[in-house]
Amino acid sequence: MPSIDLNCDMGEGFGAWAMGDDRAMLDIVTSANIACGFHAGDPSIMADTARLAFEKGVRIGAHPGFNDILGFGRRNIQGDSPASIERMVAYQIGALQACAALSGHRVTHVKPHGALYNMAAVDADMAQAIARAVKAVDPALLFVVPPLSAMDRAGDAVGLRVVREAFADRTYEDDGTLTPRKIAGSVIHVPQLAAERVVRMVLDGAVTSRHGKRLPIVADTICVHGDTPTAVAMAAAVRSALEAAGVTVRAVE
Amino acid sequence: MPSIDLNCDMGEGFGAWAMGDDRAMLDIVTSANIACGFHAGDPSIMADTARLAFEKGVRIGAHPGFNDILGFGRRNIQGDSPASIERMVAYQIGALQACAALSGHRVTHVKPHGALYNMAAVDADMAQAIARAVKAVDPALLFVVPPLSAMDRAGDAVGLRVVREAFADRTYEDDGTLTPRKIAGSVIHVPQLAAERVVRMVLDGAVTSRHGKRLPIVADTICVHGDTPTAVAMAAAVRSALEAAGVTVRAVE
Amino acid sequence: MPSIDLNCDMGEGFGAWAMGDDRAMLDIVTSANIACGFHAGDPSIMADTARLAFEKGVRIGAHPGFNDILGFGRRNIQGDSPASIERMVAYQIGALQACAALSGHRVTHVKPHGALYNMAAVDADMAQAIARAVKAVDPALLFVVPPLSAMDRAGDAVGLRVVREAFADRTYEDDGTLTPRKIAGSVIHVPQLAAERVVRMVLDGAVTSRHGKRLPIVADTICVHGDTPTAVAMAAAVRSALEAAGVTVRAVE
Amino acid sequence: MPSIDLNCDMGEGFGAWAMGDDRAMLDIVTSANIACGFHAGDPSIMADTARLAFEKGVRIGAHPGFNDILGFGRRNIQGDSPASIERMVAYQIGALQACAALSGHRVTHVKPHGALYNMAAVDADMAQAIARAVKAVDPALLFVVPPLSAMDRAGDAVGLRVVREAFADRTYEDDGTLTPRKIAGSVIHVPQLAAERVVRMVLDGAVTSRHGKRLPIVADTICVHGDTPTAVAMAAAVRSALEAAGVTVRAVE
Repeated sequence: MPSIDLNCDMGEGFGAWAMGDDRAMLDIVTSANIACGFHAGDPSIMADTARLAFEKGVRIGAHPGFNDILGFGRRNIQGDSPASIERMVAYQIGALQACAALSGHRVTHVKPHGALYNMAAVDADMAQAIARAVKAVDPALLFVVPPLSAMDRAGDAVGLRVVREAFADRTYEDDGTLTPRKIAGSVIHVPQLAAERVVRMVLDGAVTSRHGKRLPIVADTICVHGDTPTAVAMAAAVRSALEAAGVTVRAVE
Repeated sequence: MPSIDLNCDMGEGFGAWAMGDDRAMLDIVTSANIACGFHAGDPSIMADTARLAFEKGVRIGAHPGFNDILGFGRRNIQGDSPASIERMVAYQIGALQACAALSGHRVTHVKPHGALYNMAAVDADMAQAIARAVKAVDPALLFVVPPLSAMDRAGDAVGLRVVREAFADRTYEDDGTLTPRKIAGSVIHVPQLAAERVVRMVLDGAVTSRHGKRLPIVADTICVHGDTPTAVAMAAAVRSALEAAGVTVRAVE
Repeated sequence: MPSIDLNCDMGEGFGAWAMGDDRAMLDIVTSANIACGFHAGDPSIMADTARLAFEKGVRIGAHPGFNDILGFGRRNIQGDSPASIERMVAYQIGALQACAALSGHRVTHVKPHGALYNMAAVDADMAQAIARAVKAVDPALLFVVPPLSAMDRAGDAVGLRVVREAFADRTYEDDGTLTPRKIAGSVIHVPQLAAERVVRMVLDGAVTSRHGKRLPIVADTICVHGDTPTAVAMAAAVRSALEAAGVTVRAVE
Repeated sequence: MPSIDLNCDMGEGFGAWAMGDDRAMLDIVTSANIACGFHAGDPSIMADTARLAFEKGVRIGAHPGFNDILGFGRRNIQGDSPASIERMVAYQIGALQACAALSGHRVTHVKPHGALYNMAAVDADMAQAIARAVKAVDPALLFVVPPLSAMDRAGDAVGLRVVREAFADRTYEDDGTLTPRKIAGSVIHVPQLAAERVVRMVLDGAVTSRHGKRLPIVADTICVHGDTPTAVAMAAAVRSALEAAGVTVRAVE
């Protein structure tokens, strides 16, 4: 029987500020990517999110980003050496491991955030630096990456288990890349439409591009976003549709 | 044969700013307390300091502080709940563990920094929160504390191995507390004088107070400071005097 | 005809995070206290809030706080010298003046935030430092303070125009101080109840304490909070009740 | 008689960390560019540096950078809108104006720092955003820029007085751009060599490129760096050589 993981970014508040409905999302997804204090999250939010995930039986991963609270880790920051990137990522993974230890939970995956994710998808030096950091901290960590990206190759090269992700609410170009957000229609807002696309990805191993081309897509996990007004409805629709189609929703073993 | 540990705070630069001569101090001390990014230190400095300590065979510990880069962790910050303190400390220990893993080194002790150290020395709730964090992250970690303080008791209570520290360059009051820094003469600047006091502490288990009273003092480790102009000379004098007196300088086993 | 100012803290988001419904509040209040980037707010939020206030004809003031984004300026930070406090406050006022200049608005008052407000209410050195900063930046700035506080005296002493504020949604003790937040019932959540109290403060110059004692209160401005779920309803009720009672709601001239 | 301004970046410490010998440099230069808290500097350092400049009769300017304390403002940060850049620059100018007001000094120029300077030199949108910010805060502010850059044009376009700067310790390419720092020999470390080049720039209006080509250069101010080991010797040599050649060293009127 086919199966798939659903992952969501979480713990993205900071101090007095909240973001997203993590409690509701944790009833739907099977993997939670927890912000580690550099672009969002603080020790208390990290520990609370890890504990909640533990109570609900959801796997957790580190979601490291650039040190950019003001920009929410979405600004490309250029000029860090690969060694600097490596240490920045290691730092954040270790910080979450310790915050998770407070409730007895365990970090089992790593997925870079925002600009770090986008830059490392195409920058081999950066991708390798991240992969080295993950491996040094714990070689059993799963490395969640875009399929066919520089991170995908870097993870393979150092012997990490690589988990490839697709997006529930984004359209694709004919070459398999995500349609840039600035193009109208690049983000899918209708839960049922997203849900149907995800079912097709999982059952057919393919998705239809924005221009109607059939694209093969091999995904081990589907990212559902947690910070939009329709996030919970979208995630619930995706999960329901998958289960109705006979797909088991579960974390990557 | 009597033995004693020498510890020093290190890795206290930040970004483009340097502080102290860590390389020289690592040739003298046996334990390095590494700042964890909250009051000083950043992932690169942490990893570099841990690697240097590894190469020189020096034990390393986490030196967690308040999140106060601007104030160097020396300002008392009031209003955090014990749970918040616990998580803040866990976060920093985990971050250093991961940065140390990059060079194969291992964190074996924890010593709070600055205002956190001073507040937790007398605040039982805060002390217990710190002790819980240390234990949750790794129950084998040594907990470096002022003798007879709230941290000393909290460490004992949760079953941590407690390491008690005395200061090479500070005078004591008749009640065994440190003379406040604002009082003239509270800080000893003459290396030979500090060195003689440390030898007496170790061999006699006692120190003479500012007013001439003999105070029993049980220290497992002596703190030498790294951020003053005479830091290296002071530390070297202390180590030489100890060895000349037949004391073995080595990390707590 | 009696008149009163209504003030509200605003611009308290940060980067990707929002807080409060400033647009709605700006239709109700006559003075906006804008966070200046140290405990909340960033240059874009500050400029946007100032512009919006300008468009709606609302006076603006700087709302400086401790440099404590993580703690939202609500943690007491001890150890700063008065000179340090003075410069920290000046910095924030100047920053807002410049952000306001982008839309042609002008900063006309200063009201410290959170822990800085509470500490300076009773700490004469800190209060004088703040007053000196306000005066140095612009001696025409109104200084918004708790009546009879150290800030009230410090403002008078340096020749600033002092604006005394009362709170719409807080109860008072018999000695005229605010009931601490941790005591049940200290915060009033029923808009109509708060509104009636404010009307009595303005018309009678008095408020009834938590234990039923009549307290004289001289307020030039009433603070309505902007960051609670009922904030807008509360502020609207206060304004309506004042106008129904024949009180003109307008900024201090 | 020919004249020239000498400018230097200053106030680049942060909290407990120091950088450069501002006191010595203020005896040599005629314009001080003061960091504004985003890449370096804090309110106390800003106020102290402004006061010292005031006492020594040195003009001061705002030296705004990206909000990047960890990276010292040297990392290119991409993704900010022009409006965001505009506000970020305004904020920093205003903050310095207020800190300078504490000692009665006045900000009379603005020179962007590091990555912001480099990016805005070639990015018209960013350059115009900065120019708009400068003009909105105070249209009399001098705008210090690289000659022939996007900032030069943007300053002219909005009607600011533009001050063009050359560098004492950097070599130039045949096209008039600075030799990138990574190329060996791009930075001149011998004070006398730098001094001679500066004299030629001022008297001949030209400099010899790295490959021996004579380049016309029109500079109103010469930047001498303050954060290198030979900074003071270099600056002193430049000033002496200029005066020996009959050039008056003075701020732009």
